[in-house]
Amino acid sequence: MRYKTLYWQDSAVYLLDQTLLPAEIVYRKIVTPIQMHDAIKRLVVRGAPAIGCAAAFGCLLDLPRTPDTKPIARYIVAQADYLMTARPTAVNLFWAAKRMKKRANELQKMPAKIFTAHLLKEAQNILNEDMAQCKKIGEHTLKILPKRKSRKVIGILTHCNAGALATAGTGTALAGIYLAARKKINVHVYADETRPLLQGARLTAWELTQAKIPVTLLCDNMAAKIMSEGKIDCVIVGADRIVANGDAANKIGTLGVAILAQCFGIPFYVVAPTSSFDLTLKSGREIPIEQRDGDEVRKCGEQYLAPKNVDVYNPAFDMTPVELISAIITERGVIKKPTTAAILKHFKS
Amino acid sequence: MRYKTLYWQDSAVYLLDQTLLPAEIVYRKIVTPIQMHDAIKRLVVRGAPAIGCAAAFGCLLDLPRTPDTKPIARYIVAQADYLMTARPTAVNLFWAAKRMKKRANELQKMPAKIFTAHLLKEAQNILNEDMAQCKKIGEHTLKILPKRKSRKVIGILTHCNAGALATAGTGTALAGIYLAARKKINVHVYADETRPLLQGARLTAWELTQAKIPVTLLCDNMAAKIMSEGKIDCVIVGADRIVANGDAANKIGTLGVAILAQCFGIPFYVVAPTSSFDLTLKSGREIPIEQRDGDEVRKCGEQYLAPKNVDVYNPAFDMTPVELISAIITERGVIKKPTTAAILKHFKS
Repeated sequence: MRYKTLYWQDSAVYLLDQTLLPAEIVYRKIVTPIQMHDAIKRLVVRGAPAIGCAAAFGCLLDLPRTPDTKPIARYIVAQADYLMTARPTAVNLFWAAKRMKKRANELQKMPAKIFTAHLLKEAQNILNEDMAQCKKIGEHTLKILPKRKSRKVIGILTHCNAGALATAGTGTALAGIYLAARKKINVHVYADETRPLLQGARLTAWELTQAKIPVTLLCDNMAAKIMSEGKIDCVIVGADRIVANGDAANKIGTLGVAILAQCFGIPFYVVAPTSSFDLTLKSGREIPIEQRDGDEVRKCGEQYLAPKNVDVYNPAFDMTPVELISAIITERGVIKKPTTAAILKHFKS
Repeated sequence: MRYKTLYWQDSAVYLLDQTLLPAEIVYRKIVTPIQMHDAIKRLVVRGAPAIGCAAAFGCLLDLPRTPDTKPIARYIVAQADYLMTARPTAVNLFWAAKRMKKRANELQKMPAKIFTAHLLKEAQNILNEDMAQCKKIGEHTLKILPKRKSRKVIGILTHCNAGALATAGTGTALAGIYLAARKKINVHVYADETRPLLQGARLTAWELTQAKIPVTLLCDNMAAKIMSEGKIDCVIVGADRIVANGDAANKIGTLGVAILAQCFGIPFYVVAPTSSFDLTLKSGREIPIEQRDGDEVRKCGEQYLAPKNVDVYNPAFDMTPVELISAIITERGVIKKPTTAAILKHFKS
């Protein structure tokens, strides 16, 4: 069985607590926007598309009990603005919160009950669309996987977790891998552990093991060696924000993997729904990069593994310039050798 | 004060237990070759030059009590052979063990007491030479550090620990940094944490903090981003084995750092004593690479951070091809743009 990343039930959001995986499988019941803000910030829920879904439902938590629509609408707008401050880099958060705000503003003349039903429907749509997009993304990814005449295995390196746990569906980077496995294509995933929070070790290795898809865990610094051994046929990663020219922000370490892939002549694919695009920014240099607490690097659990007072550099993301990206895959299809023009065309198609 | 990595006292070797740093400062008393083999294998002592010193003294532990020299010499030869099986990659281990064997064979006609005194002297020479080499290496490294007219800081990235803790002296990669700091040159070290065993976080960050040299800790996967920000002026790493053409085996992750440095136009220096060279091998592809237990990656202390049964790729070293190395620095000087001919010449000089 596959565990849902999040779901709505009886005016609450249930989040699979990703800080505890794989040791414990615990759902957190979230009943206020403050709790949701904290859950997003602490990475109880993470992954750009999943954060979008969580924020959409998050605006609807603990609604004012009043027969008037206007204060409810104002509340939703305010909570959407508040939830947008939880994390700065992934754009789906802003995209989903803005979509909820827009709907709240559009429908505020409706009676309160119908209004809230419509808003809940909007959040549910965001989640359902995410699931459908994962499916489409998987199909498009399958097209770009290297073809094999024999039963030779396809080695795929991924970084961080852009799998089922990062979305409401089967993931972005991993969607094609789930589909390939279902179609009995021989894939073997190499999962970078992804320091400091080990999303690769804790989440990607866990969800692929659950799905019985062959996976090998490696430390981030082993990627060059495994590439030099010829075991990697392509790299597939997700994205937290893709800008107009195709530059992509993703989990810290992605830039390094992209440079290594280019050095070894290995295709490097970025996979994300169109909701992860921010066409208002021209270049990746404009993307704000979240800096996180140094103790994430210094400590493991409660134990310090480095001097307690040592200075730490801990950006949560880096930016991969479009020159290093062989193709971007969205629910709409594949953008090979992405450029500003090709991306614009992709959005108009 | 600086803690000694290892020392000989009253027929025992005392090793600063590097598996416990920085949380605890404990010296392990080693009294048999079996204990030394275990200590090398478990990385209680590590770093190519330090392993060499440890092995040299290790052959002399628990010597047979007999007035005859021959059985003592045979014992030393056998223990040297045995200690050589502790780890396969760093060549200093073999170099030091062979040197002890040679001396034992040469002197076996001497009376037992004089023989053992000479052998102990040989091990002490290996340690003293290592200290002297670190000093020379530091001086040569200083010559290649970027020149600064202003007081602008020199940013140096290092990987793993090739510092005082890896040698009997001030280190290989870090020797020049210690010397620069003493000469009031503004240096700032960026220390890759170096998964899985975190020698960068636990050892490099600790020994530089102790010496009050500015150091920032980062995860291995952050090296590309910090290079892209222009903060790194050069990379300096150690080596476990350098072969005839200049290819160098070093801690896993070094290859990736070397590729990134080349991509960003940053000089990449390998620093090691001549005892780390193995001129019997023509190319780095011939260097045996130690594979270590997967639990080093899966676990932190006693806690599993990944699925218990997940497959793990855990090579302890990788090989950096000479094309990526701007210069090799030994106690004899600097080999710029190393080639087989230049290395041969360096050894003949």
